[in-house]
Amino acid sequence: MTLDPDQQAKEQAAREQAVTDEAVASFAGAGSDRYREIMQSLVRHLHAFARDVRLTHDEWERGIEFLTRVGHITDDRRQEFILLSDVLGLSMLTVGINAPASAGATESTVFGPFFVEGAPEVALDGDIAGGAKGTPCYVTGTVRSTDGRPLPGARIEVWEADEDGLYDVQYPGARTAGRGRLRAGDSGEYRFWSVLPSCYGIPDDGPVGEMLAAAGRGTMRPAHLHFKVDAPGHRTLITHIFVAGDEHLDRDAVFGVKDSLVHEFVPEPPGRAPDGSQRDEPWSRVDFDIVLAPAQGHRGVSA
Amino acid sequence: MTLDPDQQAKEQAAREQAVTDEAVASFAGAGSDRYREIMQSLVRHLHAFARDVRLTHDEWERGIEFLTRVGHITDDRRQEFILLSDVLGLSMLTVGINAPASAGATESTVFGPFFVEGAPEVALDGDIAGGAKGTPCYVTGTVRSTDGRPLPGARIEVWEADEDGLYDVQYPGARTAGRGRLRAGDSGEYRFWSVLPSCYGIPDDGPVGEMLAAAGRGTMRPAHLHFKVDAPGHRTLITHIFVAGDEHLDRDAVFGVKDSLVHEFVPEPPGRAPDGSQRDEPWSRVDFDIVLAPAQGHRGVSA
Ligand SMILES: [Fe+2]
Ligand SMILES: [Fe+2]
Repeated sequence: MTLDPDQQAKEQAAREQAVTDEAVASFAGAGSDRYREIMQSLVRHLHAFARDVRLTHDEWERGIEFLTRVGHITDDRRQEFILLSDVLGLSMLTVGINAPASAGATESTVFGPFFVEGAPEVALDGDIAGGAKGTPCYVTGTVRSTDGRPLPGARIEVWEADEDGLYDVQYPGARTAGRGRLRAGDSGEYRFWSVLPSCYGIPDDGPVGEMLAAAGRGTMRPAHLHFKVDAPGHRTLITHIFVAGDEHLDRDAVFGVKDSLVHEFVPEPPGRAPDGSQRDEPWSRVDFDIVLAPAQGHRGVSA
Repeated sequence: MTLDPDQQAKEQAAREQAVTDEAVASFAGAGSDRYREIMQSLVRHLHAFARDVRLTHDEWERGIEFLTRVGHITDDRRQEFILLSDVLGLSMLTVGINAPASAGATESTVFGPFFVEGAPEVALDGDIAGGAKGTPCYVTGTVRSTDGRPLPGARIEVWEADEDGLYDVQYPGARTAGRGRLRAGDSGEYRFWSVLPSCYGIPDDGPVGEMLAAAGRGTMRPAHLHFKVDAPGHRTLITHIFVAGDEHLDRDAVFGVKDSLVHEFVPEPPGRAPDGSQRDEPWSRVDFDIVLAPAQGHRGVSA
């Protein structure tokens, strides 16, 4: 019954490979080629992980328990699985795979867990703050295609944390604030009021927070304003603009910063704003020209 | 601004690798070496998966949504994450990594999602059925160490589906049936009544069921009786015995079958059973000698 260590290791490796092969083969009959490709690759990489680290039963159990808690803390207002994907760099990698830098197009970044469907519609020069606290911020720009053509009617959705670093969904109650939808005007231009975004810590009172603590990682994200922009015939753009000078720009907890997305938010004294409104307090402004890549010839970030 | 396709592919690969490197590096400061090892390997393999299949944003979103539903269907009585691990072969691989075939020790198989802590204590010759429907089944055997020494007092936990293929936790209400705990006697012997296990379909009304359907896979598990056996100084054994002749032995939905675990469940006519009880209906019996490996020198399946 005794094998030498070499034989034993070989036999053990063969036995483990047989389990992987059986699990891979079990997806051979998938109705969709793409589903088969994804699941077979997932099984291979998941098994390779377990083998590489020699995952113990106890660690497997802790993994199950971790995912269970991620599932149980997730609800309509909190998406801990997206947060997990974000802090593992999977979200940013998926962004990179799907939005290869396209000559002249605005770069993408992570979607994040705080988007909400059906935000309030605002007109050009409208205010998306909806009661969110913070220094008023006037955001302007144009939406164009990579060929320079303006994209009138482009759909712009924006969302942000208030000056306390919290999104509306992180407050008790069902208040909507710091988010809105608008359409670009006839020349592709857009303009709206919001509040100056603040840096914030991602939610750390759940399993993802425990993971970051165990990893000795920080939870902070540099201040940013989220954009989702759609126009017919173009790839959906999911991105942020970051506030230049934020102290967390070089250590974003979710790896979302790109140089081209860092913008000056210019402080302004009280007085008349470009939209003609009278401002009694200091305000801030930023200009962000958005360039969308044509949809053709790209793997879809489908809207 | 234009690069040739080769340059473009190289630059794209470098950009993707940079995301992976950054995410791997973010775990460098982990307090525990083992945690760092596991998380860095997880990030590498997870990213390799996303890159290999060129995961789209839409597919990423469906993955998030799938895991969210796995989380939400999981509760005290249903563990869809374990089921997911089972059907992906990860559970069986973890078993294989942690319980390398040890000369003479009983082989392990998957834990499954239906174990419940604190099952009723029964004496030798007691009945664990607790109202579970099915042909009575008398289960006997001994618990020994690989050196042949009996292990009196070994803790044995058993659980099984009834003749309708359902575990107690799958019925409404909080009934406990088809599960129990006992201790081996002075010579390592054990004996208890149960019901003849039935083959069953794993729960297919949740996301894992949808996955199996999309994969064109069956949901059936061959009939089996679960064992968890502990004795001081020995590795915890988690296993089943399978009923010889079951039609599903060669296509277990969770890859759990091993030849050494397939046992004859012998049908018996009404009459006097070995424990002296009078049986008015047909019954069945199986003998299963359990051999535990010493704990020393093995990576722990910690109890
Ligand atoms: Fe954000
Ligand atoms: Fe089972």
